[in-house]
Amino acid sequence: MAMGEIKELPKSWAMLGGDGPESYTQNSSYQKGVVDASMEMVDDGIMEKLDLKSLGFESTNDTFRITDFGCSVGPNTFFAVENIMKAVEHKHHAQFNNSPFSGFQVFFNDVTTNDFNTLFKALRSNEKYCSAGLPGTFFGRLLPRSTLHFAHSSYCLHWLSKVPKEVLDSESPAWNKGSIQCDGLKKEVTKAYSAQFQSDMSTFLEARAQEIVGGGLMVIIMGGLPDGILMSQAGIGMYYDLLGSCLIDMAELGVISEEKLDSFNLPLYYSSSKEIEEIIKANGNFSIERMDSLSHNIWKTSRETKIKVSVTGGRVVFQGLLEDHFGSEVAEKTFENFETKLDENFSIIDGAAHEHIDQFILLKRNVN
Amino acid sequence: MAMGEIKELPKSWAMLGGDGPESYTQNSSYQKGVVDASMEMVDDGIMEKLDLKSLGFESTNDTFRITDFGCSVGPNTFFAVENIMKAVEHKHHAQFNNSPFSGFQVFFNDVTTNDFNTLFKALRSNEKYCSAGLPGTFFGRLLPRSTLHFAHSSYCLHWLSKVPKEVLDSESPAWNKGSIQCDGLKKEVTKAYSAQFQSDMSTFLEARAQEIVGGGLMVIIMGGLPDGILMSQAGIGMYYDLLGSCLIDMAELGVISEEKLDSFNLPLYYSSSKEIEEIIKANGNFSIERMDSLSHNIWKTSRETKIKVSVTGGRVVFQGLLEDHFGSEVAEKTFENFETKLDENFSIIDGAAHEHIDQFILLKRNVN
Repeated sequence: MAMGEIKELPKSWAMLGGDGPESYTQNSSYQKGVVDASMEMVDDGIMEKLDLKSLGFESTNDTFRITDFGCSVGPNTFFAVENIMKAVEHKHHAQFNNSPFSGFQVFFNDVTTNDFNTLFKALRSNEKYCSAGLPGTFFGRLLPRSTLHFAHSSYCLHWLSKVPKEVLDSESPAWNKGSIQCDGLKKEVTKAYSAQFQSDMSTFLEARAQEIVGGGLMVIIMGGLPDGILMSQAGIGMYYDLLGSCLIDMAELGVISEEKLDSFNLPLYYSSSKEIEEIIKANGNFSIERMDSLSHNIWKTSRETKIKVSVTGGRVVFQGLLEDHFGSEVAEKTFENFETKLDENFSIIDGAAHEHIDQFILLKRNVN
Repeated sequence: MAMGEIKELPKSWAMLGGDGPESYTQNSSYQKGVVDASMEMVDDGIMEKLDLKSLGFESTNDTFRITDFGCSVGPNTFFAVENIMKAVEHKHHAQFNNSPFSGFQVFFNDVTTNDFNTLFKALRSNEKYCSAGLPGTFFGRLLPRSTLHFAHSSYCLHWLSKVPKEVLDSESPAWNKGSIQCDGLKKEVTKAYSAQFQSDMSTFLEARAQEIVGGGLMVIIMGGLPDGILMSQAGIGMYYDLLGSCLIDMAELGVISEEKLDSFNLPLYYSSSKEIEEIIKANGNFSIERMDSLSHNIWKTSRETKIKVSVTGGRVVFQGLLEDHFGSEVAEKTFENFETKLDENFSIIDGAAHEHIDQFILLKRNVN
């Protein structure tokens, strides 16, 4: 068994654990919105593209295996997998004239440092499925060969396995001084980030290709950009730039050194659908059954909700990263400053936001 | 899918988590000794009783699935499953002329409140097997039907799913006043404990019978008693009586009320091999391939080591239970007192100990 090269991701990659008022569990409504928006597409995909007969589901003794890659601590992962199960049962009834369905086994995957204790406590005692935790980076094989029928990954794959080292190297033409993200304004920076994304995405697809049975499906939901739009032109890019400006403030106040600031970049890359399509085609193990963008309910809510979701949502996702690099005091001050600035620059998370999209991708594993 | 009736066990049933100086991880050398003593028996069992051909392992694409039921937080579970894997590979080489073996999937099971975060951190990055955490009580179905090839359960099944309520009921003839355990001196108490053990063990066997494939093996290691020996005559029974006497001291000092004391009993039952054999035969899904007792290295060590293992080993296992019932202050005082008393009554964990045995049971799932 050849696992991927990447053995483990840094601890700070995990979402904030526990289930208290500042946990990911309590502050992941943006990610919940993504799941909500995708549900109908998932239903349609299963109804139209999943053929249980060709997967060999003749005997009622077969178990349908689902894995959510990058599940975090819940509850979004439960909504997602329960929706998948409902749709698969529906399809089973349609294909097998209501004969009984044996059941599901669901694997919940996230990095080893994810708070699985909280996840397992939240896992409802459910008669309908067997569940298991799958610890480890999804940039490597996690399941036995050809045993998975449905893979799901929501809002994870725009996270890179690492920040490309050139963008932190003052000697490199790709040095990203003055920005904490791939804002799209400097060709060399974009090239370095894009290369890392391509490598990570290929590693992910290769690992999943080994695990998923021929004819099995995979749904990928991830942050993205419309073709031709730069990150710095999109609401999400402005959002990160504003977070970056809070760190620049810290440097200007002398709270952190310039070197400390320069050595920090976000391990994120928002790609165009064209770029993703090319990577999937180059991998060659999957056919693209659907690529679409998701519209998100958050943009229909009040100013207050938008700010709250943007601030606390940013905290639960990035607090680990910031604390790891700058220490907890600086991270705390930065987020306080961020809240004020978001309020002052409300248009970033309002009007301009439509330039950011979430990608919905439905893939089918080729039969070898 | 019909799961067992018992949905979840109390939080205090879990071993002490974390990996600090007072954790189960650092203080489970008794349980480690049990694993060590069983290794050769496991090896022999796999070599003699496991037929990979009849399990359908012809194609190299097959995955051999192992589950450790009641794994706690490590490291003992890793020693146990790695030993099983080595023996299965050995057998595979013997049966298939050294053709390559596809690999393993290992499920680590314990109650939902077990510290899986610590377990997963300790799970070595291993090229050889896919691993998953399986949260939930093993008194219910946890895996899909007929998917498991080897079940292992070490030092768990002498734990009951609950203390039989009669023994805490002052109106019942089985009221166990004055003792915190089934000491074997009162027929009605023994009957109540034995009935609970029989019910739990049957539930466990029924759940495993659904999960294990025909021809698959199960190793059960559990605390037990030689036929005809009462708990109060065995070292282990004296050990619990001594712990009980520390609680009686607390009541006499007025630190806890008599009612509080009377409402506490240990959810433990050490059975004879004869009793276990009858339950397995009544269940009817497994053939008994071997029943034996294990000798333990701890009895060959120094006085100091024996006391240390007995005190800290007792703490990591029972601290949760005692804190839950009496509060953490009383638990702390009780253990301090216990250490002193164990030193004063050294013969309990020395000479008399030979009356206690650990049972080794190798079962094979019948082919339906």
